[in-house]
Amino acid sequence: MVASTKASGLDERFSEKILTDVENNVYVERWDVSSNELGLGQGWRIGKRRLYGGVSDSVDIVTVDNGCLSFVVVPTRGMGIWKGEYGGAFLGWDSPVKNLVHPHHITLEARGGLGWLDGFNEWVVRCGLSSFGAPAIDIVRDNQGREQNVMLTLHGRIANLPANLVKIRVGLRPPHEMGVEGTVCERTMFGSNLKLTTSVVTTPESNTIEVLDTVENLRGIRDEMQLLYHCNYGSPFLEDGGRLVAPFRCVAPRDAAAAKGVDSFNVFGLPTKGFVEQVFFMELLADSKGRTKVMLVNSDETKAASLSFSVKQLPYFTLWKNTASKDEGYVVGLEPGTGFPNPKRFEREKNRVVKLGPAGRYRAEIALSVHLGKDDVQKAIDEIDEIRGGTKPTVAKEPIREFSQV
Amino acid sequence: MVASTKASGLDERFSEKILTDVENNVYVERWDVSSNELGLGQGWRIGKRRLYGGVSDSVDIVTVDNGCLSFVVVPTRGMGIWKGEYGGAFLGWDSPVKNLVHPHHITLEARGGLGWLDGFNEWVVRCGLSSFGAPAIDIVRDNQGREQNVMLTLHGRIANLPANLVKIRVGLRPPHEMGVEGTVCERTMFGSNLKLTTSVVTTPESNTIEVLDTVENLRGIRDEMQLLYHCNYGSPFLEDGGRLVAPFRCVAPRDAAAAKGVDSFNVFGLPTKGFVEQVFFMELLADSKGRTKVMLVNSDETKAASLSFSVKQLPYFTLWKNTASKDEGYVVGLEPGTGFPNPKRFEREKNRVVKLGPAGRYRAEIALSVHLGKDDVQKAIDEIDEIRGGTKPTVAKEPIREFSQV
Amino acid sequence: MVASTKASGLDERFSEKILTDVENNVYVERWDVSSNELGLGQGWRIGKRRLYGGVSDSVDIVTVDNGCLSFVVVPTRGMGIWKGEYGGAFLGWDSPVKNLVHPHHITLEARGGLGWLDGFNEWVVRCGLSSFGAPAIDIVRDNQGREQNVMLTLHGRIANLPANLVKIRVGLRPPHEMGVEGTVCERTMFGSNLKLTTSVVTTPESNTIEVLDTVENLRGIRDEMQLLYHCNYGSPFLEDGGRLVAPFRCVAPRDAAAAKGVDSFNVFGLPTKGFVEQVFFMELLADSKGRTKVMLVNSDETKAASLSFSVKQLPYFTLWKNTASKDEGYVVGLEPGTGFPNPKRFEREKNRVVKLGPAGRYRAEIALSVHLGKDDVQKAIDEIDEIRGGTKPTVAKEPIREFSQV
Repeated sequence: MVASTKASGLDERFSEKILTDVENNVYVERWDVSSNELGLGQGWRIGKRRLYGGVSDSVDIVTVDNGCLSFVVVPTRGMGIWKGEYGGAFLGWDSPVKNLVHPHHITLEARGGLGWLDGFNEWVVRCGLSSFGAPAIDIVRDNQGREQNVMLTLHGRIANLPANLVKIRVGLRPPHEMGVEGTVCERTMFGSNLKLTTSVVTTPESNTIEVLDTVENLRGIRDEMQLLYHCNYGSPFLEDGGRLVAPFRCVAPRDAAAAKGVDSFNVFGLPTKGFVEQVFFMELLADSKGRTKVMLVNSDETKAASLSFSVKQLPYFTLWKNTASKDEGYVVGLEPGTGFPNPKRFEREKNRVVKLGPAGRYRAEIALSVHLGKDDVQKAIDEIDEIRGGTKPTVAKEPIREFSQV
Repeated sequence: MVASTKASGLDERFSEKILTDVENNVYVERWDVSSNELGLGQGWRIGKRRLYGGVSDSVDIVTVDNGCLSFVVVPTRGMGIWKGEYGGAFLGWDSPVKNLVHPHHITLEARGGLGWLDGFNEWVVRCGLSSFGAPAIDIVRDNQGREQNVMLTLHGRIANLPANLVKIRVGLRPPHEMGVEGTVCERTMFGSNLKLTTSVVTTPESNTIEVLDTVENLRGIRDEMQLLYHCNYGSPFLEDGGRLVAPFRCVAPRDAAAAKGVDSFNVFGLPTKGFVEQVFFMELLADSKGRTKVMLVNSDETKAASLSFSVKQLPYFTLWKNTASKDEGYVVGLEPGTGFPNPKRFEREKNRVVKLGPAGRYRAEIALSVHLGKDDVQKAIDEIDEIRGGTKPTVAKEPIREFSQV
Repeated sequence: MVASTKASGLDERFSEKILTDVENNVYVERWDVSSNELGLGQGWRIGKRRLYGGVSDSVDIVTVDNGCLSFVVVPTRGMGIWKGEYGGAFLGWDSPVKNLVHPHHITLEARGGLGWLDGFNEWVVRCGLSSFGAPAIDIVRDNQGREQNVMLTLHGRIANLPANLVKIRVGLRPPHEMGVEGTVCERTMFGSNLKLTTSVVTTPESNTIEVLDTVENLRGIRDEMQLLYHCNYGSPFLEDGGRLVAPFRCVAPRDAAAAKGVDSFNVFGLPTKGFVEQVFFMELLADSKGRTKVMLVNSDETKAASLSFSVKQLPYFTLWKNTASKDEGYVVGLEPGTGFPNPKRFEREKNRVVKLGPAGRYRAEIALSVHLGKDDVQKAIDEIDEIRGGTKPTVAKEPIREFSQV
């Protein structure tokens, strides 16, 4: 790892190491760097490994430990974040799918388009980029210019595509920002050609990870894009009596199953055998700059995990309550997105699908933070209260036509 | 490889070596052990390799040679047994699919759900675990609790899933039992979560391999399971005039094609160009403990391959006669299972699908033996005769409603 | 690499190196040879690499440089030719799919059978072998002898199957022919079993690559075969005012979109945003031995790329005009084949599907040449003129029933 020698001021501030660059035949199987080695800051380390054996064979992972918060980025699975840890608190969830699954073991088309679920166990996984949401038929134009019915598979392709470019960057100057950068291309001839460029960054001893994404349309023509961040939490943040704190503007249950639970939509219960998922669609209030924050708080308000983002970038928010038994995946998903995870055709009708012109770019950023101790949790609750400013949310008791196919 | 130092008496009796443990980042690419090296018994050896190139790239195999009988276990393909050899006699068959095919080259959904056939060349391959049998539509409950039609693919997923845990065990005390243990998980979020734990064991100079399997339902709820052992033999056990010796209780042809051959259902002919498979469904008699034995015997009764198992564990037996030309796969399959390889919906109707509660386990064991020489073969025939005890089988001339969709 | 020591005169003339032989557990990850090293000829080199990272992870490539012309053969992708270069001119095209994609990232069944397009970026890619052409339903006979509707996916399987045998051969005597040989098997139980054996050869300082293929039916029964060479060119051979020079006998547009462009079917325009592909089906004139030649010539006739082949082997020729914007893939495909890339059922009706008996073989050869400079280009034009011999082509203004489903 060497400090950049480029003339640009920007690059001189960083030391960087390319781990994968398919275009230029660069691939580093195993690599480590630490504060000691670089003499920059202290207590942090970054390591890259290739896994072997079983369903994880040939999966690349990058582990970043900022001294307090550690997390595992998975280049082979679309630069998702597998799991993390902060102050002894586990970040992520305990999926029935225990190991990282190489995309080559996933057939998205399996079981009516639900194959995505065979590899679903990340803390943070992107859904998209050409489409996300429930499997459904969509009409697309084929190479001959004809309209064809095609099956869009659950949550799209991006989480099962490997990054073609992966690098590590460490800031030479305080606060020594450090992170993993990656490029994942979702592309095909005669179809979408969307390039995701992501930086997953933190600073030493911080309680926060920032995910800084840009999606670019590389096609010569205007095309569609959908992006949703499926951020999933189990214990210890999720527990009986835990709740979602957020500046709700309007909330509606997705379907009849969710409608049954709408009165306590933001409160979570014990693991419940046979619980059928309840999904709530919502819009959030934001501050004058468009920033908002949502937070999962445990029952005694000593542990919380928050997401901060802009409603200009991610205007729709989905809450996935899946408080099933531990064996079935006791989990809630906090899901800011460019739309709701309905079939794409419905989202298109409702103008919740992004359109990008040639070379058009879409930026989305999320900060994922952890708050431990009553004081820190209360501080974050106060921030959300300030965004809310006393506005009472509209909570529909039944699914609404604007949000759901009902 | 070190002898276990655990306090447990069980473990002190074995020396073991972990070859793959995805959970704990253990993976051994190449490894060998032998009687000489360990000073235990003589003439046996075990070796582990990773294959490279072509369709077999990245496939792991473990070869066990007990001094007389050798066989190849394939962790990458669900712990199936590729092929074996005993006293110069080949165990397995000559499939049109010549090499071990890595699951990543298999799309089970291909050609209407027949993709499984693209990798089918094992001596012993498990079908299951969530379903086996002909591709067909089934109704399953999805994440939203709705009933969905999904395509179940031929013979299910288990043969194309890699083991996440693989170890070798050798008994420190005579008879120095040795074998390969593996764990394969067939699981998805919102779907089945079945863990297969298998031991494939033998003892030095034995003519027998034992396959000792346990399938556990890791879901929090009751779920279904199907398991069938597709044990396939070609030359030299299969030949013109060879036959299946077994304590038949009742036998029925699967369909019209099989009905044509029902009068000689247990006798095999020469390789026949254009032969269309004939499948017979049957129930077998057993001894007072439920043990039974079936055996493929060559024409002059000097070579035989038998399966011993319990009808309590595997109550239904399927005979697959596929005496097509050598190029097409001249083979018979002896298939003890929890049901018949019909579409799962039909098997469910007939109560031939296993249901396992949370943490419920299902055990199944098969002993695969080889008998060479007239005396040994006759001894095994006598054993089967004793089980039969003079009972005459019921042989239906046409498919019956209890067994077949007719 | 050692000169053959076999008694056969044929083998004594070659030095050979086996790089992959799955049957015999041979795999060479990295290997190089050159004229200097062997002391044979001068200026040439051959190198073999395994790629790592991203979508190209575990892809094997062999680069042959004859001193003037270099090209990259991809054993992992059916022995296709990724790209080449001759005298500074790039051979191939700039696909939206930028990197070599390992077949395990391709699901041919995706998006209604268009998954093949996710990996499509080769200069020369074979379509076939059991079927090629547009995705469509076909009726095939299954293991039970029943007719089943199955989806045939775009352009078949061969381009996404790895070679099980790969070797390098260099002639010991002038002209020191050198090349890559490979065997790719497209096979399944109860289905097609077609073995492609290919040699991709050149000689030092030549402007030509020869692709010498044999497809053999390994089934015990008569079976079908389809083979088409999708040879794709972008800049610098394709440009505004470039044209296809060929001894056309009859030409017809595939469909209405092509009919619009039929008056200038053999002339190419600038990259055009939103251009919908135009496909022309044709038959070509040939010399007395059946040899013909087609050539893509740039606008000032200083650069040309030609294909020479026999109309006895490849009687049907398809021109794929896809002069879309650079970002969408500005490309023309020259496609000699055993038929046209229509749905297979239609081709079967028109007797354009090859039938091979057991052990039946089909040979097909193509010479790919580059012509730089007005003189060389003119010489090749003259050759084509001689084949044409003054015959005027029949050009249908509308699709014709013999060629198209209209």
